[in-house]
Amino acid sequence: MKETIVHVLERPRLRDPVFIEGLPGIGLVGKLAAEHLIQELNAVKFAELYSPHFMHQVLIKKNSVVELMKNEFYYWKNPDEKGRDLIIITGDQQVAPTDSPGHYEVVGRMLDFVSEFGTREIITMGGYQVPELQGEPRVLAAVTHEELVGYYQEKLKDCSVEVIWREDEGGAIVGAAGLLLGMGKLRSMYGISLLGESLGYIVDAKSAKSVLLAVTRILGLEVDMTALEERARETEEILRKVQEMQRAMLEQTMPPAPEEEDRGYL
Amino acid sequence: MKETIVHVLERPRLRDPVFIEGLPGIGLVGKLAAEHLIQELNAVKFAELYSPHFMHQVLIKKNSVVELMKNEFYYWKNPDEKGRDLIIITGDQQVAPTDSPGHYEVVGRMLDFVSEFGTREIITMGGYQVPELQGEPRVLAAVTHEELVGYYQEKLKDCSVEVIWREDEGGAIVGAAGLLLGMGKLRSMYGISLLGESLGYIVDAKSAKSVLLAVTRILGLEVDMTALEERARETEEILRKVQEMQRAMLEQTMPPAPEEEDRGYL
Amino acid sequence: MKETIVHVLERPRLRDPVFIEGLPGIGLVGKLAAEHLIQELNAVKFAELYSPHFMHQVLIKKNSVVELMKNEFYYWKNPDEKGRDLIIITGDQQVAPTDSPGHYEVVGRMLDFVSEFGTREIITMGGYQVPELQGEPRVLAAVTHEELVGYYQEKLKDCSVEVIWREDEGGAIVGAAGLLLGMGKLRSMYGISLLGESLGYIVDAKSAKSVLLAVTRILGLEVDMTALEERARETEEILRKVQEMQRAMLEQTMPPAPEEEDRGYL
Amino acid sequence: MKETIVHVLERPRLRDPVFIEGLPGIGLVGKLAAEHLIQELNAVKFAELYSPHFMHQVLIKKNSVVELMKNEFYYWKNPDEKGRDLIIITGDQQVAPTDSPGHYEVVGRMLDFVSEFGTREIITMGGYQVPELQGEPRVLAAVTHEELVGYYQEKLKDCSVEVIWREDEGGAIVGAAGLLLGMGKLRSMYGISLLGESLGYIVDAKSAKSVLLAVTRILGLEVDMTALEERARETEEILRKVQEMQRAMLEQTMPPAPEEEDRGYL
Repeated sequence: MKETIVHVLERPRLRDPVFIEGLPGIGLVGKLAAEHLIQELNAVKFAELYSPHFMHQVLIKKNSVVELMKNEFYYWKNPDEKGRDLIIITGDQQVAPTDSPGHYEVVGRMLDFVSEFGTREIITMGGYQVPELQGEPRVLAAVTHEELVGYYQEKLKDCSVEVIWREDEGGAIVGAAGLLLGMGKLRSMYGISLLGESLGYIVDAKSAKSVLLAVTRILGLEVDMTALEERARETEEILRKVQEMQRAMLEQTMPPAPEEEDRGYL
Repeated sequence: MKETIVHVLERPRLRDPVFIEGLPGIGLVGKLAAEHLIQELNAVKFAELYSPHFMHQVLIKKNSVVELMKNEFYYWKNPDEKGRDLIIITGDQQVAPTDSPGHYEVVGRMLDFVSEFGTREIITMGGYQVPELQGEPRVLAAVTHEELVGYYQEKLKDCSVEVIWREDEGGAIVGAAGLLLGMGKLRSMYGISLLGESLGYIVDAKSAKSVLLAVTRILGLEVDMTALEERARETEEILRKVQEMQRAMLEQTMPPAPEEEDRGYL
Repeated sequence: MKETIVHVLERPRLRDPVFIEGLPGIGLVGKLAAEHLIQELNAVKFAELYSPHFMHQVLIKKNSVVELMKNEFYYWKNPDEKGRDLIIITGDQQVAPTDSPGHYEVVGRMLDFVSEFGTREIITMGGYQVPELQGEPRVLAAVTHEELVGYYQEKLKDCSVEVIWREDEGGAIVGAAGLLLGMGKLRSMYGISLLGESLGYIVDAKSAKSVLLAVTRILGLEVDMTALEERARETEEILRKVQEMQRAMLEQTMPPAPEEEDRGYL
Repeated sequence: MKETIVHVLERPRLRDPVFIEGLPGIGLVGKLAAEHLIQELNAVKFAELYSPHFMHQVLIKKNSVVELMKNEFYYWKNPDEKGRDLIIITGDQQVAPTDSPGHYEVVGRMLDFVSEFGTREIITMGGYQVPELQGEPRVLAAVTHEELVGYYQEKLKDCSVEVIWREDEGGAIVGAAGLLLGMGKLRSMYGISLLGESLGYIVDAKSAKSVLLAVTRILGLEVDMTALEERARETEEILRKVQEMQRAMLEQTMPPAPEEEDRGYL
């Protein structure tokens, strides 16, 4: 496997679909939110993305079955005939932060794929680390085009979550949540990123809930949030086991590290 | 050399061959097991795999002869006319854990190659690090497809080694032992990974023996384990010398490391 | 996005243009100088360079609008009909210092692009770290060809800034400021690098001023330096916010680091 | 520049040339030896190798002139009509040790190039780090093929330097000195690596002398060693200046490092 590939399981016809991204990041906020949305909407998996830029490992799933690292595309057909359909992506991981070209390749492949279904709007979900939280986590919003600020503010005006719009410059959105908007913009797509405040050290169900509330408000959907905390606990447990095993296997296949001192350049 | 290549020395006709992998990893369990199997079965080397993703060095072999880093394919023709033949791979190293795309490239090339001989089943061998051992090392099993659990459990039911089947989710198999199954699955191959418990700090002959006992049970073979401990001692000694020389040469060709503090992003 | 691309917004006709580079580096000297020059000359943006070798993130600009990391080309048409026009490049960042091939790719693409407008001369601007400063920052000069030393010395002879010409060998110019000259030389281009002395820990307006004074002397231009210090303060504030958010997001997407001790090579 | 290139300045006709490599490594032994050989023989530069895998910088040479990082090929025509000619390579650096594929690419390109001149034999020179030295540095020899041991031992039998032939297995030769032999062997080339013992912390003229004495014995040449120590001192001074400047420029262009603790894998 020399480049990122998408295995297509089904080719649904979708009506003006909104592409929603929730991949692992700060507090696993985006991933939790996406998985919850998929489950509550009974969204259907229709494609898998594999990449040589993902970690070189398989995950052990239930009953000792292994699976290659992947991201997964789900679709949801809106029962309201005038409503818009959804494509949701979540997955095991993002490309490692030391591999920027890998990120650009994977995100480019995602945009290629969702374009095939006529996608124009993108909503990305994630966490936004803060040193301390006061009350319910707020949500930071950022958009592809200045003229969209009013459009989204209108949709979010009755949201029970406080949404922060920054007027000054500064800050960065790292990874797919940012790149999908930035690269999408070069292809005439538009959208919004919604980042929930999080302390970041746990799988953060509260932050995911804040983000999901804002997303559902934009989409005009209702989603039950009851199962969110339970899902966060399960995710945390699985993660712990993966990391233990992974760490041990990585340690023993490293070449010897040159010592930090005393390196001549030539 | 810009990509992974396979030098073919011979093209044997093989009967429904099982592909067995034992490359360096935790406790060198997989490599030891594969080398022992090759020696006891008098398997024949028929191909070498070279990759620009291997360490940029040669190893010094006996009598001051150097050889490029490589992996080696061996075949064994089953004397029982109804039995299945074997392809066994072992080698000097796996791709560095910092180079995920290299792993995917090398494992993809391995699968391309063994497919040419009609391979459908894969058995991968390795170590599984545990903080302490009680009694003989147990073996952790993981498979490509859920419906194979019963198939392999039946074959392993009289194995003198305790085989662990995990029902819950969590854990990862890093490197070729995992990728061969995960990527093989995408090509309609199937198989099992057998990982021997190991403290991981030594070349672990006991763990390799546990794994080999399980493998031979699946294959219906008998293999003498007497020479395994002696082989572990020799391997340990060679490794020590390679690392000493390698470490010194790497240290002196590094560019100066930027200091950890005080890095501006732009 | 699999390689560096240039999005062209306009194709101006330029008269024997000088290509001036000011990208982020020590003390942000080059970037500050380039941005100031662009603003004071009212130079016009005509192309954007994007690269998968830039950081995988978007920056948050004013009013919560995101933009992909990029470098930007500006042109300035000399009102003097006999004068030479300018192409100026600045941007969010350079390729990471761990990705040398990325640097060569990006700089090669820059040279391809400016060649289309007939560029032969290159002036690169940057900082040169010194442990302490005495008086106004001096400027270190380096050129592509020995026969140019006299040419540039003549132009710089009335410069109010002290320009250092080194007679002995030793030293390196890292990144675009160096590569543009080195790679340009292979394409029969010529030019000079002007590096302002800087302590390097701040956004250094004084050093940028020294460099700009030398550059304007070479070009025969007058540029007002009043706004330079204010610009440095703003840049510093934006940078601080980007780094805070970026650091948090990077920390939470890293795979577990193998521990430094106890790595076997195979 | 997307791959390694060779700029050819002249295409000499060479008689069965021996290819001699001396690139930077432990104690700069190989580079010093190669440069001394080039100077004493008045060898002629006929090609330059550039690579995107070299450090992204230019070096500042005498009189403030910059040059891209490179390796250089020299030839020497043997005045003895029956003698063999030489191709010697030295240069500013080797590919960084973190970039194995870059090493394979660059060394492959070197072998492509010298093959065009009919090269079959390769001699590589380098250092071999030891914790302490007793008397004159000895030289460790390693060859491509076992049947060559006798051939080279015969040539070296009257060498004033002690040459070590190892009978046991273990050890590695990292970088071009090793890869040229390992990859050359796959192209039916043959040769020897000569590594001088060195403490490694200095530019080591004594070790370079030992290696050169062995090389000249194999080639049947006489070379005056007087200037070797002076050259070592000069090299050390230039290196120091390059590193100082390089280190400062690298530090200020790094993206923020994720902290070592607290990395989630997804």
